[in-house]
Amino acid sequence: MADQLDPILSGQTSDVYFARTKHIMEMEGLNPIVSMEVFPGADGVLCGITETITLLRRVLPHNAEVWALEEGTLMQSKEVVLRITAPYRSFVLYETAYLGILAHESGWATAARACVQAAGDIPVISFGARHVHPNAAPYMEYAAIVGGCAGCATSAGAELAGIVPSGTIPHALCLVMGDTVKATKAFNRHISTDVRRIALVDTFKDEAEESLRVAHALGDHLWGVRLDTPRERGRVTPDLVREVRVRLDQAGYEHVKIVVSGGIDPARIGLFRERGAPVDAFGVGSAISGAPPIDFTADIKEIEGRPVAKRGRIPGLTLNQRLERIDL
Amino acid sequence: MADQLDPILSGQTSDVYFARTKHIMEMEGLNPIVSMEVFPGADGVLCGITETITLLRRVLPHNAEVWALEEGTLMQSKEVVLRITAPYRSFVLYETAYLGILAHESGWATAARACVQAAGDIPVISFGARHVHPNAAPYMEYAAIVGGCAGCATSAGAELAGIVPSGTIPHALCLVMGDTVKATKAFNRHISTDVRRIALVDTFKDEAEESLRVAHALGDHLWGVRLDTPRERGRVTPDLVREVRVRLDQAGYEHVKIVVSGGIDPARIGLFRERGAPVDAFGVGSAISGAPPIDFTADIKEIEGRPVAKRGRIPGLTLNQRLERIDL
Amino acid sequence: MADQLDPILSGQTSDVYFARTKHIMEMEGLNPIVSMEVFPGADGVLCGITETITLLRRVLPHNAEVWALEEGTLMQSKEVVLRITAPYRSFVLYETAYLGILAHESGWATAARACVQAAGDIPVISFGARHVHPNAAPYMEYAAIVGGCAGCATSAGAELAGIVPSGTIPHALCLVMGDTVKATKAFNRHISTDVRRIALVDTFKDEAEESLRVAHALGDHLWGVRLDTPRERGRVTPDLVREVRVRLDQAGYEHVKIVVSGGIDPARIGLFRERGAPVDAFGVGSAISGAPPIDFTADIKEIEGRPVAKRGRIPGLTLNQRLERIDL
Amino acid sequence: MADQLDPILSGQTSDVYFARTKHIMEMEGLNPIVSMEVFPGADGVLCGITETITLLRRVLPHNAEVWALEEGTLMQSKEVVLRITAPYRSFVLYETAYLGILAHESGWATAARACVQAAGDIPVISFGARHVHPNAAPYMEYAAIVGGCAGCATSAGAELAGIVPSGTIPHALCLVMGDTVKATKAFNRHISTDVRRIALVDTFKDEAEESLRVAHALGDHLWGVRLDTPRERGRVTPDLVREVRVRLDQAGYEHVKIVVSGGIDPARIGLFRERGAPVDAFGVGSAISGAPPIDFTADIKEIEGRPVAKRGRIPGLTLNQRLERIDL
Amino acid sequence: MADQLDPILSGQTSDVYFARTKHIMEMEGLNPIVSMEVFPGADGVLCGITETITLLRRVLPHNAEVWALEEGTLMQSKEVVLRITAPYRSFVLYETAYLGILAHESGWATAARACVQAAGDIPVISFGARHVHPNAAPYMEYAAIVGGCAGCATSAGAELAGIVPSGTIPHALCLVMGDTVKATKAFNRHISTDVRRIALVDTFKDEAEESLRVAHALGDHLWGVRLDTPRERGRVTPDLVREVRVRLDQAGYEHVKIVVSGGIDPARIGLFRERGAPVDAFGVGSAISGAPPIDFTADIKEIEGRPVAKRGRIPGLTLNQRLERIDL
Amino acid sequence: MADQLDPILSGQTSDVYFARTKHIMEMEGLNPIVSMEVFPGADGVLCGITETITLLRRVLPHNAEVWALEEGTLMQSKEVVLRITAPYRSFVLYETAYLGILAHESGWATAARACVQAAGDIPVISFGARHVHPNAAPYMEYAAIVGGCAGCATSAGAELAGIVPSGTIPHALCLVMGDTVKATKAFNRHISTDVRRIALVDTFKDEAEESLRVAHALGDHLWGVRLDTPRERGRVTPDLVREVRVRLDQAGYEHVKIVVSGGIDPARIGLFRERGAPVDAFGVGSAISGAPPIDFTADIKEIEGRPVAKRGRIPGLTLNQRLERIDL
Repeated sequence: MADQLDPILSGQTSDVYFARTKHIMEMEGLNPIVSMEVFPGADGVLCGITETITLLRRVLPHNAEVWALEEGTLMQSKEVVLRITAPYRSFVLYETAYLGILAHESGWATAARACVQAAGDIPVISFGARHVHPNAAPYMEYAAIVGGCAGCATSAGAELAGIVPSGTIPHALCLVMGDTVKATKAFNRHISTDVRRIALVDTFKDEAEESLRVAHALGDHLWGVRLDTPRERGRVTPDLVREVRVRLDQAGYEHVKIVVSGGIDPARIGLFRERGAPVDAFGVGSAISGAPPIDFTADIKEIEGRPVAKRGRIPGLTLNQRLERIDL
Repeated sequence: MADQLDPILSGQTSDVYFARTKHIMEMEGLNPIVSMEVFPGADGVLCGITETITLLRRVLPHNAEVWALEEGTLMQSKEVVLRITAPYRSFVLYETAYLGILAHESGWATAARACVQAAGDIPVISFGARHVHPNAAPYMEYAAIVGGCAGCATSAGAELAGIVPSGTIPHALCLVMGDTVKATKAFNRHISTDVRRIALVDTFKDEAEESLRVAHALGDHLWGVRLDTPRERGRVTPDLVREVRVRLDQAGYEHVKIVVSGGIDPARIGLFRERGAPVDAFGVGSAISGAPPIDFTADIKEIEGRPVAKRGRIPGLTLNQRLERIDL
Repeated sequence: MADQLDPILSGQTSDVYFARTKHIMEMEGLNPIVSMEVFPGADGVLCGITETITLLRRVLPHNAEVWALEEGTLMQSKEVVLRITAPYRSFVLYETAYLGILAHESGWATAARACVQAAGDIPVISFGARHVHPNAAPYMEYAAIVGGCAGCATSAGAELAGIVPSGTIPHALCLVMGDTVKATKAFNRHISTDVRRIALVDTFKDEAEESLRVAHALGDHLWGVRLDTPRERGRVTPDLVREVRVRLDQAGYEHVKIVVSGGIDPARIGLFRERGAPVDAFGVGSAISGAPPIDFTADIKEIEGRPVAKRGRIPGLTLNQRLERIDL
Repeated sequence: MADQLDPILSGQTSDVYFARTKHIMEMEGLNPIVSMEVFPGADGVLCGITETITLLRRVLPHNAEVWALEEGTLMQSKEVVLRITAPYRSFVLYETAYLGILAHESGWATAARACVQAAGDIPVISFGARHVHPNAAPYMEYAAIVGGCAGCATSAGAELAGIVPSGTIPHALCLVMGDTVKATKAFNRHISTDVRRIALVDTFKDEAEESLRVAHALGDHLWGVRLDTPRERGRVTPDLVREVRVRLDQAGYEHVKIVVSGGIDPARIGLFRERGAPVDAFGVGSAISGAPPIDFTADIKEIEGRPVAKRGRIPGLTLNQRLERIDL
Repeated sequence: MADQLDPILSGQTSDVYFARTKHIMEMEGLNPIVSMEVFPGADGVLCGITETITLLRRVLPHNAEVWALEEGTLMQSKEVVLRITAPYRSFVLYETAYLGILAHESGWATAARACVQAAGDIPVISFGARHVHPNAAPYMEYAAIVGGCAGCATSAGAELAGIVPSGTIPHALCLVMGDTVKATKAFNRHISTDVRRIALVDTFKDEAEESLRVAHALGDHLWGVRLDTPRERGRVTPDLVREVRVRLDQAGYEHVKIVVSGGIDPARIGLFRERGAPVDAFGVGSAISGAPPIDFTADIKEIEGRPVAKRGRIPGLTLNQRLERIDL
Repeated sequence: MADQLDPILSGQTSDVYFARTKHIMEMEGLNPIVSMEVFPGADGVLCGITETITLLRRVLPHNAEVWALEEGTLMQSKEVVLRITAPYRSFVLYETAYLGILAHESGWATAARACVQAAGDIPVISFGARHVHPNAAPYMEYAAIVGGCAGCATSAGAELAGIVPSGTIPHALCLVMGDTVKATKAFNRHISTDVRRIALVDTFKDEAEESLRVAHALGDHLWGVRLDTPRERGRVTPDLVREVRVRLDQAGYEHVKIVVSGGIDPARIGLFRERGAPVDAFGVGSAISGAPPIDFTADIKEIEGRPVAKRGRIPGLTLNQRLERIDL
């Protein structure tokens, strides 16, 4: 996706005052070597540093120096996660871009981690591309994986993360086929056997009844059922999961897993676990994809080796032994 | 930006189960005409419908019918804002994309409107591109304008919105020039006179003192000053604005405007107005760019003219006389 | 139920110190004419005064005088609702009994009224005998009717209130018959046609699906369906009611009513009405039957015409023009 | 009190739909052996199981099987406390009755236990018959004893619990006698010496002054004083108890106990103990007698040995090793 | 009390840095004419301005100018209440003193006003000298009168306010005399008939009983009774006042007034009035005498006619048309 | 300050009813030996006992006995801190005075202690004389020192406490001199070298900038800077302290201390310490000087050796082994 960098490299997605600053510096013949430090405004999972470095490699000269924390690191509020030392004109234009990458992706990764932590051993799948502009959705999916998710749902996001996308069956297919069992059997007929058969069981009938119908129809081919009861029907509850589990077991379908989705967030995951509901996977949407960005700030702290800072900030480089020198 | 549509058109940014659904329908020889209704999960400003229609025009056949509300409309929770009636295979692949466009952009536009409403007659400028992935940042800027902002900061966003980008002076330029007056004079020398001279006055000295220094140096060339006092120094307060105003006026600089930025949100705007602080413009960042998406849902409500719905939803088309037929 | 008075008349259900007081007064040759005033500790619906007067008629001598408010009156905290003027020995033994009658029944009637007020034009049926000792349950049902309920569920309670008991179908019958349609048809076969056919539709299947099945099976014989979705399945929601209504109407069963039960209280009733859910009747259990008694106090305020009172109370008779003289 | 069972046995106090269910089963020739499980909706003290078993013994056939927890057991929410396995027609009519017995009595016993726990070594006496319908009052008193109370106030309740009723002196006797000392001396003259002399000391005079007067008048005959200061005079406070104690002791009446009543509940008991007030007994009224019932539910879990359950419940018998087989 | 000014005039009670500032100005030969403005940090009743002007008259030269609001004015937060224009050396030493006078006295007057407002037509007497250092107590009493109190309790305070002090009977006198009636009769014998006879009735006996005893003993000589029930006995309640009133009236003592004291503050006064308790006067202690001072600030706003101000304040004189020129 | 006692000794600052009580006792020929116990209504630091004993020594006869806790002791609510046994007429007139001394001074000392505890090793200076009437201000300063403060600001207060007063530079001196550096240099020229040079750095310029200017001007003569940023400019923040520290250190002024003032209270002190701000001293104003008095009560507990008490209190002497016999 390297060609995605073009509008960024042109500066079109940056705040215009950086383009003007670059122009003024050129007109004034200024190009001091500055050290820029970047830090977050909250604790979280650092994400986007890889993409940032890819960008910096395209623009920085050979004598530049970059120090950074690793992708996926747990960072603290105000901890320096990136330091760039280079002639300022070489990278002044990209501040908006790399702050945006870090802010948005770290926000998503941090939210994903909260879900994953809440879920303990139970895998969490990111299902929330539908809440994010499609130009950014693959980066959201990538960040969810960095934050600990076991899977994501778009091809582009999965590619960025180096995995295979996950997917069950949408309500639309059940509605178009007119019956959940029919839809699941069609899926079973036409989709590569590499893909798990996970029936969606709340479209037409009671979830427990429908679970037994698809289990009966697909037998050992069925990997699991997905419960996605809408809010209008009281959402999926821990008791529903337990009941479906017992009814499947009593009918001899112990092998069928239960996936839970619909309004899932860390508090809700905690509730399911606290009540001992036998969930095999959680599908999470807006609790990850709707997470607020984490604000990042970039501060010039040295100019030609002299400590400086604007009012309110500490002049000079900040000690952080966790930073590692990046090979440009 | 039409070529931006390519990864969307390929389905790569969509949830993979829609690609599989399309494949199953092809294998089963199914392609019913369905009516899909799209509605938001909260009240807000509808944004993204223009981009959605551009996408649909690329993929829908001639016999399709699309109804929608207008870009920028105030929509209610659960109100149908878009209805697509077409052979389902023609658009099944794009549900993730158009929901993501609507969700993300309506979230931003709605947050922008809350700031604009709070500000009354005082213009609000969107400054928050730095919190959003650069691939999505221009759409955030566009949505801020749809929500009522008077300006935005990136070239790409301004282009989408059909306006000219705004920008003052970053702290970095002051630091590199070593003095705020020097930086402002350089800006005045090299930047087109079309662009307003707005000095940033909190980098080195007391804001009131620095305001008087730049006013003295630029005289009538100075359009305004920007107060951006950092949180470490207590943020910009209504009293600071009033004091700077009086000191400028007492020195004869009544023409110099005051722009306020730094942690501005509707509550903070309300405080400035309630205290009667003489602010001439607000710069808003994460209160707009960090707004959560508004969840949108797409439901099949008719198949070949028959009312249908999944459990929890009302079968059949929903009456909404505000919908208008779109010319495809 | 007059013979139910026997254990009360014997004093066995009274606090023993009243029996001792009577004995001491006899031994001391004391039997002054006292005026006893009875008042509640909270606002509410007065209930039990009829039963109290029946009791007093059995024990008071001819020269006694009783003043009271009417059954079902809205009373205020500390308002005198009953005044007995009689030789004290004649009624000293029954204070515990009449206070208990008034306290328990007024508590239930007041709770019933709160439900009825919340429900507006929609009738409320008392279903809560199962939370009350069976010796008291008929009085609870009676009080619910005094408080405004349109029906109750036990034969004894209905008899006290002068109405016919209401009842639908218990889950047990569906389970024993193995199918809701079968159970409803058996009900239709064997129960007098005076009794409305109200199918219980949440035992085995999705409520909307089952509603359509019983409507199809009974046609015009079906008066209504009862939704009683358990808490484990998210309780009955306003959206469920609306959906069942639309699905019944779309299938031509506009005549079938919808009864809602399960955890119904005034707040929940308010929610259904606020959301415009088309409910035809509410079944209320513990929100009425589990209501706390309203504390009543009996104070001697005159002895042989002299104003008296214990510390903390005002000596002498309390003016209340709403009291009416009772014909003994 | 066996003849109290008659209206219950006739089914008149049951929800009418059970009578109809029985009739339908008879008409359909159905009488399967079912297992019914009964569980509470909250933690508490199980009470009423003895009365329930007495009822079941009257109605179940020889081949029936009943399992139950013991009267007074601490039960957990949703724990099965009773299982009946029998031909369903034999006991279908009594579900309302036994649920009502368990609900009401367990509610009272649980509230009593909370008071007793709060009081530690200090005995608690149930005084609250005046808030309960006299038909149910003896069962409330019985339940209070099951919950740990040391005494109760009605003859019928004490008989159910196998103890002797407690009682002091009502305000009415003081008022009728015109003086607390006179009333206490009359009590002393006429009441069996088996009964403790406990003077009520807040009717006419300051409680400390009156305590000294009755102590002086009765000397060693006086067992204790009861403080019952009304809310209008600030209720009994820990400081009042301490002061009365010291003034009695300083006058040589160390043997006189102090009983505290009036608005006593666990929080208030805790306050007295936390402040070290020398209370010898607490009299508790509506904190026990006004306690809400604990909701109990009865579910059919097996029919002719097959696991069943309505939606929302787990089919089949529930394991509970604490259940014991009851000798019918 | 003019000689009380001596330690103030010597500067000993001022912050030492003002003495040093005066010394430095003398050494530097500086004595500019400055305008000092004084304003409060909260809304309230201005008190102490009279004492301040008395002080300024002692120290300011003839060419000085003083503007001020009147004693007792309702002032707003940040409103200028005093402006001094004079050679700065003449008054630099007294800033601590006049700020302290204004702060402490305005705090007391403002609290007094809150009580008086709450009490409506019922007079309020200040009883709180016992919570204030005796050197300041008369000024507290004076401020209470400025705030609207109808009386105060110390001779020195009453003298400052130009009234006669009020007083009832302390518990100590009752204890020393051994009986409330005896103490009240002794008061009646020995104290000038100009002084109202107000018996304190909670020392030994029930307040209602004691009220009747003193009324009986003094007859028409008794002006009123004071209820001061201690917290240990539940404080004075509205119901107690009502009861005492009725018992006095029923015994023919309608002329006896009721004074209420003990923990009285605006909320408590409001409760008495809301409940309609027939109180004739309130005695208030720490709700007035323990009120926090209102912070006052003095700012130099002009030096030799030039507007100046420290950072954070607006340079130059503040418009306030309510200020009046003081005759020095 | 012994002559300050005169108005107290005359009884003019006492509640007038004590003068009347003394008169009545004289007329009745009563003068019993009483034991009066004094106790506080809240936990705190006892202060004023020294001044109280000085007063009592002036008035008590030789046979009197006084027991007390030591000045500065931590006392508990309701603990007896003073017991006077003497002929009552000798001290009846001074109850208002000694209660006022104890209440006001203990209130201030307790508040001072809360600041000192919060500050740990960092010294706290009392700066709040400006909120207290000048007649009482020295006692407030004295109490602050008893509560643990390291310094105070008035000469009279310092004299009472046996220390030397502290003071920096007021804003007024900076304004009059027109420049902070000029003012500080004048201070350095004219004030005894015993006094520390502490520059006030927020009058005209940014605090960090001004700190560097004064450090440069005074060099080793400068002991410290005081930060007193007004609320209008966001108050002093922990980050400001840290930044000033670093900027001073980077310029070689490690010896310059930082004093923080302006709205300082225990919570704010806690914030500075929690954030690790390098503060060298705190200046505290109204958090000490505006503290509410602690209510003290005086109770007669013995008369001629007989235990007595008013209602609500325990008759007889209270055991407190911490009391020590005072040498009169």
